[in-house]
Amino acid sequence: MKVKNFADRLLDAIDSKKNPSIIGLDSDFARIPAFLREGFKSRFADKFAAAGNCILGFNKTIIDAVHDIVPGVKIQSAFYEQYGPAGCRAFLETAKYAKGKGLIVIGDVKRSDIGNTSKAYSSAYLGKVPLFGSAQPGYDLDGVTVNPYLGSDGIRPFLEDCEKYGKGIFVLVKTSNPSSGEVQDLVSGGKKIYESVAGLVNGWGKGIVGKRGYSSVGAVVAATCPGEAAGLRKMMPRAIFLVPGYGAQGGSAPDVVQDFNSDGYGAVIHSARGVIFAYQNRNKEEEFGTAAREVAVKMREEIVGAMKKKGINPW
Amino acid sequence: MKVKNFADRLLDAIDSKKNPSIIGLDSDFARIPAFLREGFKSRFADKFAAAGNCILGFNKTIIDAVHDIVPGVKIQSAFYEQYGPAGCRAFLETAKYAKGKGLIVIGDVKRSDIGNTSKAYSSAYLGKVPLFGSAQPGYDLDGVTVNPYLGSDGIRPFLEDCEKYGKGIFVLVKTSNPSSGEVQDLVSGGKKIYESVAGLVNGWGKGIVGKRGYSSVGAVVAATCPGEAAGLRKMMPRAIFLVPGYGAQGGSAPDVVQDFNSDGYGAVIHSARGVIFAYQNRNKEEEFGTAAREVAVKMREEIVGAMKKKGINPW
Repeated sequence: MKVKNFADRLLDAIDSKKNPSIIGLDSDFARIPAFLREGFKSRFADKFAAAGNCILGFNKTIIDAVHDIVPGVKIQSAFYEQYGPAGCRAFLETAKYAKGKGLIVIGDVKRSDIGNTSKAYSSAYLGKVPLFGSAQPGYDLDGVTVNPYLGSDGIRPFLEDCEKYGKGIFVLVKTSNPSSGEVQDLVSGGKKIYESVAGLVNGWGKGIVGKRGYSSVGAVVAATCPGEAAGLRKMMPRAIFLVPGYGAQGGSAPDVVQDFNSDGYGAVIHSARGVIFAYQNRNKEEEFGTAAREVAVKMREEIVGAMKKKGINPW
Repeated sequence: MKVKNFADRLLDAIDSKKNPSIIGLDSDFARIPAFLREGFKSRFADKFAAAGNCILGFNKTIIDAVHDIVPGVKIQSAFYEQYGPAGCRAFLETAKYAKGKGLIVIGDVKRSDIGNTSKAYSSAYLGKVPLFGSAQPGYDLDGVTVNPYLGSDGIRPFLEDCEKYGKGIFVLVKTSNPSSGEVQDLVSGGKKIYESVAGLVNGWGKGIVGKRGYSSVGAVVAATCPGEAAGLRKMMPRAIFLVPGYGAQGGSAPDVVQDFNSDGYGAVIHSARGVIFAYQNRNKEEEFGTAAREVAVKMREEIVGAMKKKGINPW
């Protein structure tokens, strides 16, 4: 049986929710509501286990609150790795829980390495891992972010798993941080480095295009650079852009609309802190799920509104 | 009490073993001796736990076999992450065990992200993690590899922990894989991208120079490009080069000698598969520890021999 292409799966999920925005589970333990942290603290002798389980508990409430309105979630690995094995378990269980709710799960892991090591990373997050003569799914996410600095052979193992298992990758092209230009904006042969990377991404994605015309090889393109987004759209017409920087990092709805093609597809807008920690602007921290949902609904409305204004709303 | 600078610690460890080469624990489960895998398989109901514990057991034997002749080990995270939380535990316990044997432990994690996320990564691997009002060490490694694609603000949190906790980083400059040139060799303003990154590395390292004149900010420089190494040496005079690619990846002793300064310091040569899986060239897989030690001894002799030939052997 042929697996279903990742890009097709993602676009179908977007259609089903009429929403191209996803929620980032950048679940920084220190910002989780105090009542929740205290509750988990008393239940576990091991403090790392308490933190891991607290993060998982927090995430489940957020997922419960938004799963019917968003097509997927992105899990930022750093905030889990902090807590060692217990944090890894929180990552794994969060991914399982989100998948169980029908969400597309993207791991923001930004991995990359040389050939056989990249293969191990791809096995870990997308493919299957060798286990006593058989092969078993590891984290079994739908997609991951990857770093392009090592070139094609660091990416190839991921491409193979994308094809084999219907998974996807998002290659860092232009990131949202203030110093992203130090390497990414250097100019070589009349093109910025991130534009050269965009060319690589376009090539990597050609062999894995789904029925809906998009590739399983996407690109991370920061919403804080709207002019750049329009140019990159042309260089990678079949790539789905994973657009961070909405809300907390400064991107607005009119900015991110440039990341879409004229068919209204081709971008997934992402917000994390602004949604999951929205409770910090309210009186009751117990309502962190409701607060997150409200901001997620508002984000959808803003983005879909801006799409309508531009005449590219597909729903 | 002021912590001891990482570069000083590393050079002292190199002096104490009269050996600038370290062993890579790229402990690919599928290549661990079959007798060991079978032994662990029968002891654990959970197959991921069996794999994680098998990797840890394998590593302990390797560490026991080489700890008196090498200054440190490098742990390649990908081969651990494959096994989820159990793999993370194997990573953590391997690091603890190696530190207990007096070894410098470098995590080959190649992480990088935007500001607050990079901070979480740095806390995880080098610094301390927030835990119910206190701060606790996470993996507490001596150093990690990092990726420069996001520029300074992705690196800064690591620099802060390097200074605060006497830790180190090795920034990917020029990697050993065949397609490394696709991004790294692009030419901008008369310089290749990896040379521009070398300039950044030199800048990042200036504030964290130890008593022995080297910085806690090192660089990953591939031994497969000896001509490039000599040029990079001049661009980053105070950086310690972490040189992969010895042995299995094709680098030879005369090649890697170019990575050292004339004082005989400034490089750490690294070999993984060629050492830890040396048993595959022998009849008895039970002797994998002895086989690894023999290759490690040979690597030291070859490198120190080539240093002597060039007149830069400090011992």
